[in-house]
Amino acid sequence: MRTLLVIGIGAGDPDHLTLEAVKAIGRTDAFLLLDKPEERQDLIRLRRQMIAEHGRPGHRVVELIDPARDRTTAAYKEAVEEWRERRADLVEQAVVEELAEGQTGALLVWGDPALYDSVIAVLDRILARGRTEFEYTVVPGISSISVLAARHRTTLTRTARPVRITTGRRLAAEGFGPGSEDAVVMLDGQAAFTKIDPAGVHIHYGAYLGTEDEILAAGPLAEQADRIAELREQARERKGWIMDSYLLRRTDSE
Amino acid sequence: MRTLLVIGIGAGDPDHLTLEAVKAIGRTDAFLLLDKPEERQDLIRLRRQMIAEHGRPGHRVVELIDPARDRTTAAYKEAVEEWRERRADLVEQAVVEELAEGQTGALLVWGDPALYDSVIAVLDRILARGRTEFEYTVVPGISSISVLAARHRTTLTRTARPVRITTGRRLAAEGFGPGSEDAVVMLDGQAAFTKIDPAGVHIHYGAYLGTEDEILAAGPLAEQADRIAELREQARERKGWIMDSYLLRRTDSE
Repeated sequence: MRTLLVIGIGAGDPDHLTLEAVKAIGRTDAFLLLDKPEERQDLIRLRRQMIAEHGRPGHRVVELIDPARDRTTAAYKEAVEEWRERRADLVEQAVVEELAEGQTGALLVWGDPALYDSVIAVLDRILARGRTEFEYTVVPGISSISVLAARHRTTLTRTARPVRITTGRRLAAEGFGPGSEDAVVMLDGQAAFTKIDPAGVHIHYGAYLGTEDEILAAGPLAEQADRIAELREQARERKGWIMDSYLLRRTDSE
Repeated sequence: MRTLLVIGIGAGDPDHLTLEAVKAIGRTDAFLLLDKPEERQDLIRLRRQMIAEHGRPGHRVVELIDPARDRTTAAYKEAVEEWRERRADLVEQAVVEELAEGQTGALLVWGDPALYDSVIAVLDRILARGRTEFEYTVVPGISSISVLAARHRTTLTRTARPVRITTGRRLAAEGFGPGSEDAVVMLDGQAAFTKIDPAGVHIHYGAYLGTEDEILAAGPLAEQADRIAELREQARERKGWIMDSYLLRRTDSE
């Protein structure tokens, strides 16, 4: 039997690796890396450094060119489905070609594989096809939203209250009016925080968390929204990509 | 200036420690441990092992007897406030008595300090009193809900959908009817999952995650609720405490 490890590697600081992740990297024969070569060169470099530091002698690194997702379509869910199918093709082929029986492969996931990541779904899809057998284990990682809260020295949950983890797309569609529950927003390509009524809303914002490019901002949304949107655009232009998240709270609800 | 470190130490497996947490433990002069001595002896032991393994020579361990919280009152929030006030007294006194200027103290938090934990609020309360000065830093940790998802090899978020992190108390009060968003439930002392209509609901349950006592169960809630409630009661009787969480999903919403 082949084994695959889905390893959460944290939000961008190599010290976010858990001891469990370090050990998992250390017993991996082949790393199957899904790269988008045109972007995020610094993330790719960081991942390579982690492998070089913690990988066992003789490990192999297999680069898979991650298929581009159609980001223009309104049919978000269908586009994601189609993209996962092609990712599954790619990973299945790599498992068959790169891992002998008894060997261990690893897929490294930024943050925590449990939050808005597709690797688990891709592996389940391959297994459901029934052509390729493997066992797989998931190693949890430090998510960007844990780092967001830590950097702002706040908690995601207030006493006995819920918090909702949601997407920029949903925030823009649903708004954040009176009575809205505290929300952590991820996957926001469109600065949805500028599209909601800022009255009575506080934001804790973070980008490139855990890296030397880290950007933090916090305060009443009415004062911060434009400033954050500008910081964000400048950073995206400078680096070519951005990865950010934020916590929204209504200060008029107690 | 004194420094305090709030260190997330993961959900129960010493290998959940991040490299950042290991380094933070290694530069700590005094660990301020909030213990409930009558319970959770194995957690206290586990924390001591982590300190012994990663602490620097000459570190000190200061045991603070965590004040009991009034768990009988219906005024949950007020009881928590009052308990935090007493916790703040305890920690403030320890900071003054145990840390010299320039020294570093650490508070170790199970899971991630960002989720339903009071240490950050307690430190802010002490600083707001204005009598005692210190700087503090938060080291994010692996939360039990990341481990829950990892063990079940599932994600907390489905594609482009939100997930709500909430409490057992709220689940029991609000129910989980048609249209409910996926929910992760924590702090459920009362098996609230047995009190909701199970039709169309799937549960991923985990207790003592990351430890050798780990309990996992998953399936349609209609089939699993009674079984999980029984496992839970048996485990609580055997060990004297339980720490668990679960993910609820409506299978009739796509």
